Amino acid sequence: MSFTTTAQAIASFLGADLQGRGDTVIHRLASLQSATQGDVTFLAQSRWRKQLQNTEASAVILAPSERDTPCTAEVRIWVENPYLAYARLSRWWEQQTRPAFQSGIHPSAVVHPTADIHPSAEIGPLCHVGSHARIGADAQLASHVVIESHAYIGDEVQLKARVVVGAGCQIGPRSIIQPGAVIGADGFGFAPNALGAWEKIAQLGCVMIGSDVEIGANTCIDRGAIGNTVIGDGVKLDNLIQIGHNTQVGAHTVMAGCVGVAGSAKIGAHCMIGGGANILGHLEIVDHVTISALTTVSRSILQPGQYSGMFPFQEHAAWEKNAAAVRHLYDIRQRLRALESQLKGH
Amino acid sequence: MSFTTTAQAIASFLGADLQGRGDTVIHRLASLQSATQGDVTFLAQSRWRKQLQNTEASAVILAPSERDTPCTAEVRIWVENPYLAYARLSRWWEQQTRPAFQSGIHPSAVVHPTADIHPSAEIGPLCHVGSHARIGADAQLASHVVIESHAYIGDEVQLKARVVVGAGCQIGPRSIIQPGAVIGADGFGFAPNALGAWEKIAQLGCVMIGSDVEIGANTCIDRGAIGNTVIGDGVKLDNLIQIGHNTQVGAHTVMAGCVGVAGSAKIGAHCMIGGGANILGHLEIVDHVTISALTTVSRSILQPGQYSGMFPFQEHAAWEKNAAAVRHLYDIRQRLRALESQLKGH
Amino acid sequence: MSFTTTAQAIASFLGADLQGRGDTVIHRLASLQSATQGDVTFLAQSRWRKQLQNTEASAVILAPSERDTPCTAEVRIWVENPYLAYARLSRWWEQQTRPAFQSGIHPSAVVHPTADIHPSAEIGPLCHVGSHARIGADAQLASHVVIESHAYIGDEVQLKARVVVGAGCQIGPRSIIQPGAVIGADGFGFAPNALGAWEKIAQLGCVMIGSDVEIGANTCIDRGAIGNTVIGDGVKLDNLIQIGHNTQVGAHTVMAGCVGVAGSAKIGAHCMIGGGANILGHLEIVDHVTISALTTVSRSILQPGQYSGMFPFQEHAAWEKNAAAVRHLYDIRQRLRALESQLKGH
Repeated sequence: MSFTTTAQAIASFLGADLQGRGDTVIHRLASLQSATQGDVTFLAQSRWRKQLQNTEASAVILAPSERDTPCTAEVRIWVENPYLAYARLSRWWEQQTRPAFQSGIHPSAVVHPTADIHPSAEIGPLCHVGSHARIGADAQLASHVVIESHAYIGDEVQLKARVVVGAGCQIGPRSIIQPGAVIGADGFGFAPNALGAWEKIAQLGCVMIGSDVEIGANTCIDRGAIGNTVIGDGVKLDNLIQIGHNTQVGAHTVMAGCVGVAGSAKIGAHCMIGGGANILGHLEIVDHVTISALTTVSRSILQPGQYSGMFPFQEHAAWEKNAAAVRHLYDIRQRLRALESQLKGH
Repeated sequence: MSFTTTAQAIASFLGADLQGRGDTVIHRLASLQSATQGDVTFLAQSRWRKQLQNTEASAVILAPSERDTPCTAEVRIWVENPYLAYARLSRWWEQQTRPAFQSGIHPSAVVHPTADIHPSAEIGPLCHVGSHARIGADAQLASHVVIESHAYIGDEVQLKARVVVGAGCQIGPRSIIQPGAVIGADGFGFAPNALGAWEKIAQLGCVMIGSDVEIGANTCIDRGAIGNTVIGDGVKLDNLIQIGHNTQVGAHTVMAGCVGVAGSAKIGAHCMIGGGANILGHLEIVDHVTISALTTVSRSILQPGQYSGMFPFQEHAAWEKNAAAVRHLYDIRQRLRALESQLKGH
Repeated sequence: MSFTTTAQAIASFLGADLQGRGDTVIHRLASLQSATQGDVTFLAQSRWRKQLQNTEASAVILAPSERDTPCTAEVRIWVENPYLAYARLSRWWEQQTRPAFQSGIHPSAVVHPTADIHPSAEIGPLCHVGSHARIGADAQLASHVVIESHAYIGDEVQLKARVVVGAGCQIGPRSIIQPGAVIGADGFGFAPNALGAWEKIAQLGCVMIGSDVEIGANTCIDRGAIGNTVIGDGVKLDNLIQIGHNTQVGAHTVMAGCVGVAGSAKIGAHCMIGGGANILGHLEIVDHVTISALTTVSRSILQPGQYSGMFPFQEHAAWEKNAAAVRHLYDIRQRLRALESQLKGH
């Protein structure tokens, strides 16, 4: 996946001013700590500014506020937002180096005759596309992807290896789904009968995913029981996330790995949910809420802000004593009150 | 997946009395909040009773205790247990609308000549069935299902896309396994050697799954190290659950998403394990125990009842101060005791 | 999977002394609790020594320290480390009973003409091997395995059903990957733009996995953003684990099920991470650290030892009162201080 370019070509792609020799050869995009000769790097946060003084990178992408910062790189490329410039450059880099897109249906794929596949789409080896499914223009299905009947895959969607999109579910344009994700398994719904056994509630809804969404590896988004499960535009979900049936996730909300969301939760837009956090069911979180990693949200959050609830860790022996005391905390509080009352009389 | 019926047809299916016009046309099964004209809905809990006064639903399924409740729906259908009636109606609805079952082996499937497949079973596209595997009557394997050698799939089992059933494992009749679940991966067993490296313990047991079990998407149930891992009849497991080797789960126990059960746990029947809960290994939980979401069970539970252990969440600033104090809780308790002693002398 | 041997054959395989009749027939390897006639078992821990007095096992593997322990088994096999002997015997047992290895490419597999597959390797049914991928000697790919372009699979590697190895990733010799694991999905990296939307950062790194590694079912290891994600030799990861991009895991570290590791964590060698534990990003853990189950590591650990942080569980009613008090713990501490000050003056 090697590739060679020049500092000038990078500056031109970014629409940025360049200081130094434009014909400096660049072979690699690297982090500031690891950059060596032939690399382009970037300063994402001013607190790492010191590393500019002895970086071996050939070119650095910098904000104008670093005009006077000493820097050993031969070339400086000036942009307003170096981290965003890095994001865009990384995607350009990938496009230069990845195998060319190949329209058409691989001969090993199994496609139902009623499926409607755009001629520009790529259906990879050993995929299965069910009846009445629709696949949009320039969509890419890697190998072993399963599209069940009546599902809809929007234009320019990328489905990586082994993604499953269940019957009737929809994936909006430009969304990316990482390997092994399951969109549209049955939600978890059962009614107890007189014998204490659980009778299945058929899950008649679907999953509706907006545009520009990314969904991580082995993440599961269940179909709705009656209505739909809805993932808004621009949502980004990491790996191994569970989204229960009938949940709604607002636009541009991000969730880090291993988050669990129970059924019928309603999560706002522009929220940030830390890794391993859990959101219980049938509650609401408004827009612009940040949930720290490992926090369990057990009731609705109606005010924007950051919320946390992680048990602190310690050396085992100290934890053991403190955890034992947690079991008596109410009692501690009551005894403290009693002492306060007793001393008030003093 | 559209379908049209009448209120009378629904009442007949449920064996229920009907009040109003039996020929009222019904197009959809809907929740009470979202129901409009042409919908049948149900009142699952009496606290939502008020919504009956202005529902636009054409028909409502109700308990006899609601005889005198005002209701705007044209048709009322009387049943003892409306939620259970909804469950049964939902399954009937699904049967009317889903693609017909197709017996036979898809030409793209790879089936070992020694496999024993009932002629009424459906083996979907790109499945792989290994040597000496047996597939029961009316079993349905969706696409990309893997059945390893000597595995047994009972009658009427439904295996969704990409399910893996490992060598020698058994799935009881009428069980349903959602996409991506892995039944019978190796358990996690290693012995340290003199060099501090871990040597693999071959996992010689299997997974034995009872009848009427449901297993969620991407859930993993490991095979036993020596004996078997056993999942009882009627157990329902949600998505992304981990069941360690040699665990036993009693009949009709349910677990919500993201639960982790370590090896050799013995969980009773009719238990309810909340989402994200964890059960450590080599312990026992008796029948009829409820574990709240996000609770870690670190020792055996020998009495039925509800058990909890979730760290409460707060605004971040408040949490930060309280979490710091958790690290000193034993000290707080000791200091409180000292004050109490000091004041006793008063 | 049945198999018959003799006590002498087992002792010979283990290089161990045997006491009793060497021609005793052995059909099964069993645990001490469940062993019956025809079984070989082992005493792994001296606290279970009492069970030797009435075991029905035909042969027992024992340490020399048990020379004088009463034992009803006909044959005793003496080894220094019975648990390690059991591990080795279990692997030998599996080799005798599992289907023979079959070199060659299954006709249903899709292999790119530029892929380099060792003639002794086995490529199972419906696998896909991409362009320029390399598969080493005696490597075994079960069915539906996906090897993307330029990936490298070392000698004697075992990839179980449905494993995905992403483009350019490497798996060291003798490693085993359980079904459904995803090696080399994109890491979770996005830069916010001026509109509050998240722009994807292309993940240009790979995943480099050492030798003798085991990776559990449906576990996900993301590729690096710029550099690589690195898993050291002899690491053992259980099921449903998430390893974020650019993480480094040192040699012989083990992680139990459902662990989450955020991006750019640096974890030492010979660490033990309990089930459900979480390690936040951009931090360091030195060698020989033990993290208890369900603990969240929120800052670097620079001293070896055991660390814990699990919220204790209780009966629900007691938990409810104690959890409410957690929300006021800082206040409790302050009030205690006030009382102490007040009483100091006494």
